[in-house]
Amino acid sequence: MSRADKVIAGDLRAGSQLMRDLDDRMPEAIEVLKQIYKNTGNGYIVGVTGNPGSGKSTVVDAMISLYREQGHRVGVVAVDPTSPFSGGAILGDRIRMQRHALDEGVFIRSLATRGQLGGLSRSTFDIVDVLDAMGFDRILIETVGVGQDEIDVMRSAHTSVVVTVPGLGDDIQAIKAGILEIADVLCVNKSDREGADRAVRDLLHMLDLRDAGGGRKDIEIVNTIATKGTKTESGIAELLAAVARHQEKLSVDGTAGRQRQRAAAHVAELVKTMLADRAQAVVDAQGGLEAVADAVSARTQDPYTAAEAIVSAALAKLPRS
Amino acid sequence: MSRADKVIAGDLRAGSQLMRDLDDRMPEAIEVLKQIYKNTGNGYIVGVTGNPGSGKSTVVDAMISLYREQGHRVGVVAVDPTSPFSGGAILGDRIRMQRHALDEGVFIRSLATRGQLGGLSRSTFDIVDVLDAMGFDRILIETVGVGQDEIDVMRSAHTSVVVTVPGLGDDIQAIKAGILEIADVLCVNKSDREGADRAVRDLLHMLDLRDAGGGRKDIEIVNTIATKGTKTESGIAELLAAVARHQEKLSVDGTAGRQRQRAAAHVAELVKTMLADRAQAVVDAQGGLEAVADAVSARTQDPYTAAEAIVSAALAKLPRS
Repeated sequence: MSRADKVIAGDLRAGSQLMRDLDDRMPEAIEVLKQIYKNTGNGYIVGVTGNPGSGKSTVVDAMISLYREQGHRVGVVAVDPTSPFSGGAILGDRIRMQRHALDEGVFIRSLATRGQLGGLSRSTFDIVDVLDAMGFDRILIETVGVGQDEIDVMRSAHTSVVVTVPGLGDDIQAIKAGILEIADVLCVNKSDREGADRAVRDLLHMLDLRDAGGGRKDIEIVNTIATKGTKTESGIAELLAAVARHQEKLSVDGTAGRQRQRAAAHVAELVKTMLADRAQAVVDAQGGLEAVADAVSARTQDPYTAAEAIVSAALAKLPRS
Repeated sequence: MSRADKVIAGDLRAGSQLMRDLDDRMPEAIEVLKQIYKNTGNGYIVGVTGNPGSGKSTVVDAMISLYREQGHRVGVVAVDPTSPFSGGAILGDRIRMQRHALDEGVFIRSLATRGQLGGLSRSTFDIVDVLDAMGFDRILIETVGVGQDEIDVMRSAHTSVVVTVPGLGDDIQAIKAGILEIADVLCVNKSDREGADRAVRDLLHMLDLRDAGGGRKDIEIVNTIATKGTKTESGIAELLAAVARHQEKLSVDGTAGRQRQRAAAHVAELVKTMLADRAQAVVDAQGGLEAVADAVSARTQDPYTAAEAIVSAALAKLPRS
């Protein structure tokens, strides 16, 4: 059985190995990904992001459980670009992984690495493709925070769920504003907290403002108490229903558009990575950026001239790596 | 007087115009930057980041005021990659800008744009260089959140101040962990809040953990109440003193190292941008990614093969743009 066939058959070992090799950008792994690509496109991809303190991880956990109760196979990509030395976020993932450790229907992969020239977004696309080819029909992408990277990552989802929480203060408003651009479903978690009604009202008001500016009008707001797990009062069933309604809507008037957008983003990411790899190879061949950095920090050379020299060298080294 | 001379003379109009043109990557602007580069290196660059809700903007505001009282000229780069459609964060900057509008010794530039292939980090380096050449001797870089972009941006500072706040909940711990990697000074703001002592204890504990792993031991923790402005009880004088001690330390055992690191990061950013521009030009010449995206989303082509074709075309179009 070839590596590609094993992955398509859902072999967990072969799948994990392929993910690791793709992270290391091993050429053989890329060949395998090319082979399995035709078997992708069956997984429904849901991105979940939210402010620190919003209980986003608990929401994801409850979503996994409910999808499992519904008979789905669930793949999870947990993206944490902060790469905590203490293992904070990763620890959370490990705890979750242990909960689902005996469940072959759940596969969790954490991404905490951040290379100098690598991209979280590219890694996420790769992992989602592998999970998809392995037969996971629900794929959750969980991201921390709302930086540019996270927004790029969220672009690789079909439906984006943004988790927020009542009463995090005014500074949050700015974040919410940025986050609304990518939200398909808004989840107000910890909705038993004081201020939940106000949070929903504020969000509706912001959506109105946005719609006045010509935005979309199809964002649903769902209240959850994710600590209640999959119980009725948790609201997680409502959340998944809202996701399903967005999926329905996409399939009527836009799956093709969303798919095309995902594909374009994926290709753009890969192009960036390949060019960055090329530049890195040139830099490495010169023994690193040390000499250049010395000249630039001594102001004997300006950074633009230095960069232009490296780019010229990178481009001169045809053909492709 | 040439454009470069005007900028070096501190002409605000010429400076702003140059920043805008650099953002648009106008070749003439890059030539000007090359000319003024030898006049940079006098500004001391302080990065300030922190969790949403930490009052980071208020801290920056108080720092500006106190630096002004001390006779410094202060340039500020406010980086907000969330690009809020409602103008939330930008509004805050406008309010601040109005406060300092009549003060020629303060220059605030907001960066909210995020291009498909552009980089906040590159823009920040460019603006810092212009501010530096204009004679601003204290340059503050304010970033929102702690994504990869923000961490890259913080790398362009001499001293990194991380603002945190008591009692934001456990989820924050993971963020703090990531953020500790880049912190030179930790600022516990709103230190009159309940839980401030615990926050400091937690931070000390995390620093201990980190040190046990071989990390640096030279991080100072400062308590502030930034809403008190520059009054003694605000702690802002203490914060600036801690920054100054870090600067002192750098000049004894590492300014050269930090400068070299900044220079290397700057060149690496420029290389990425130039290569990305090249790829974008190829994509544009092909009429965008539409056709490629169609093939990829229909699974008739895989994204790697599609990206390789674009990279080959980009590399074939020698020489440099």
